[in-house]
Amino acid sequence: MASDPAEGSVRVTILTDFGTADGYAAALAGVVASLAPGAVVDHASHAIDPGDLRGAALALSRYAFLYPEGTVHVVVVDPGVGTARRALVARVDGRYFVAPDNGVLTPILAAGSDSVLVSVEDEMLESKASATFHGRDIFAPTAARLANGTPVHALGPPLDDPVLLDWPEAQRDPHGQTVGEVLEVDRFGNLVTNVPADWLEAGARVWVEETEIGPVRRTYGEVEPGEPLALVGSIGMLEVSVRDASAAARFEAGRGARIIVRVER
Amino acid sequence: MASDPAEGSVRVTILTDFGTADGYAAALAGVVASLAPGAVVDHASHAIDPGDLRGAALALSRYAFLYPEGTVHVVVVDPGVGTARRALVARVDGRYFVAPDNGVLTPILAAGSDSVLVSVEDEMLESKASATFHGRDIFAPTAARLANGTPVHALGPPLDDPVLLDWPEAQRDPHGQTVGEVLEVDRFGNLVTNVPADWLEAGARVWVEETEIGPVRRTYGEVEPGEPLALVGSIGMLEVSVRDASAAARFEAGRGARIIVRVER
Amino acid sequence: MASDPAEGSVRVTILTDFGTADGYAAALAGVVASLAPGAVVDHASHAIDPGDLRGAALALSRYAFLYPEGTVHVVVVDPGVGTARRALVARVDGRYFVAPDNGVLTPILAAGSDSVLVSVEDEMLESKASATFHGRDIFAPTAARLANGTPVHALGPPLDDPVLLDWPEAQRDPHGQTVGEVLEVDRFGNLVTNVPADWLEAGARVWVEETEIGPVRRTYGEVEPGEPLALVGSIGMLEVSVRDASAAARFEAGRGARIIVRVER
Repeated sequence: MASDPAEGSVRVTILTDFGTADGYAAALAGVVASLAPGAVVDHASHAIDPGDLRGAALALSRYAFLYPEGTVHVVVVDPGVGTARRALVARVDGRYFVAPDNGVLTPILAAGSDSVLVSVEDEMLESKASATFHGRDIFAPTAARLANGTPVHALGPPLDDPVLLDWPEAQRDPHGQTVGEVLEVDRFGNLVTNVPADWLEAGARVWVEETEIGPVRRTYGEVEPGEPLALVGSIGMLEVSVRDASAAARFEAGRGARIIVRVER
Repeated sequence: MASDPAEGSVRVTILTDFGTADGYAAALAGVVASLAPGAVVDHASHAIDPGDLRGAALALSRYAFLYPEGTVHVVVVDPGVGTARRALVARVDGRYFVAPDNGVLTPILAAGSDSVLVSVEDEMLESKASATFHGRDIFAPTAARLANGTPVHALGPPLDDPVLLDWPEAQRDPHGQTVGEVLEVDRFGNLVTNVPADWLEAGARVWVEETEIGPVRRTYGEVEPGEPLALVGSIGMLEVSVRDASAAARFEAGRGARIIVRVER
Repeated sequence: MASDPAEGSVRVTILTDFGTADGYAAALAGVVASLAPGAVVDHASHAIDPGDLRGAALALSRYAFLYPEGTVHVVVVDPGVGTARRALVARVDGRYFVAPDNGVLTPILAAGSDSVLVSVEDEMLESKASATFHGRDIFAPTAARLANGTPVHALGPPLDDPVLLDWPEAQRDPHGQTVGEVLEVDRFGNLVTNVPADWLEAGARVWVEETEIGPVRRTYGEVEPGEPLALVGSIGMLEVSVRDASAAARFEAGRGARIIVRVER
């Protein structure tokens, strides 16, 4: 995994809820630059809401497997720093993940067909770690070791009981309708739901709480600007949008808002 | 255009209105990392206001030609995704631009002395593209092809009628005064106008709507902190500022506010 | 300092108060990419509050020395652009710093054991510089020269009177108590103080203004979620936090709030 310019360098992406203004995010990048000089650091985001594990998990799931095999993805959304929570390293379908064991990898572990997990144990790191900043003191150095070619199993003992987030799943009710919910509101005000595209039958219509949105469309272009629509979003889940505007504002809907899909007969 | 470390890698910059927290921006970087492993990705900004084509166009015009020849600039501010709008590739004065055909390249095309434009046609990409995320599915893969050395003309047929934004131009009125407007308010509250520096005659004085600002100064240092001034900004256009404060707040002025310049005799 | 892939490229970090949406930050990256093609640019942050020298100084001090020797750190928080303020280059403990001479390097200069400072004098740059954007016209080109191996002393004459910020220092009063203050509130609402860890005696208790916080803890895990605590933060200074919440909001405390530490007997 050394840095062969013909193949490009190993990438280390960093996702946190640190913001950038305090210099904490750059601290992680600096540690990686020092310990894995051949790696290229890519700041995925530092704008996750403080402690928002689900938001971080969804963001990560949108880019993790688009990066090449060998990429090291560091995730530090860590409200449990300073408690007994473990630090994880996972290799999932050829990418590496370094994160606190708090569920932030839930959709990654669900998506992967080939996963290896270990609990990071590094006495030298732990002896020197601060009480509040394991991103700098544990996660970034561990990412650098992976970028330098250290195999996963050398980082700690296997772990088979990772903490998982309670992830809401859509259900089909006895009347044949699908009952889901809004997983997340994105920057554009799109309501990203937990209803998978392959559950959408021909003729299906969509409701957000009591408001009917209409049929499932293929593209934004099928409605006029300012009009709402339901369509399959970029991660293969049903989304409710308003063309050129915010569905979240229009329908006063956020995470957990109920989504109904049914075929009217 | 291969990655020769002595010359540095090809740079691929990314400018969007995605924010970073949803992971959409990192998705583009991941696609480029996978398809053009020798390229270096630089996140120019993901903080463009949603759908703000003029803001994106101005931002891009501030950095595009400062990057070396061969750089690939990807711009995804794309309110028309899912409509029939085309995807563009332009080579302008040695830099490459990949963007929706919605006018976001207007000042780039106006500035360039040597431009080639094509409409991206790639049946394989299009057949697999999602309905909502052409940044990931069309623009980033096309940028990677350019970074890998694919020539522009191989990406699609020539295009000679790009969509252009309606760009406000300053005018000289019959009384010898210049009537312009505020193009943009920057982060510091500076009012960036559309009055070019070389229209400013000796003795010219400046007004924002009804408020006189005074003569055109050379530097902030010519007025006291808290005082307003007019001067030539970093892109060669007249700006109205307040030293160490926001002119936009002071004069309650935004895009479109009228700017008058005239020599009092 | 040439770009040897086995050792990684020279890193150039950029810290500003520019935001990213105007394209000013990318302009600096573009200049470095053009003039020092072998360097890797890392955007440390562009989210410093406009003109906030202390915030920039603290952010910088959190990452500067974590980067490898040879790294070039550019800092452009420059309310004095257009006045007679000088431009600085400093080499401190093997890292390079390029910044306006306005105090933003205060903690870096205090921390360094081996410092060399010069005042940048470059007639060619100065003759072409805009009046408002020395980041692009002076600081980035100077950083590129350093990244390309130009020695510090070639950039200008030595300077031994850098402007320093008025930095509040904690004091011990005649009653044996420590009186400090809040230096900064971070993104999580933690109150970062100016009381060094090694001033904290066994049995010490902490107050924010009139409110008692309690003893100095080792980790967040020692209190329940929602409970306040005092502990040593990641830069070795006393911090006051609320577990999983904002101490700044809870105690309505910001920069300058008084911190008392004393041993009750």
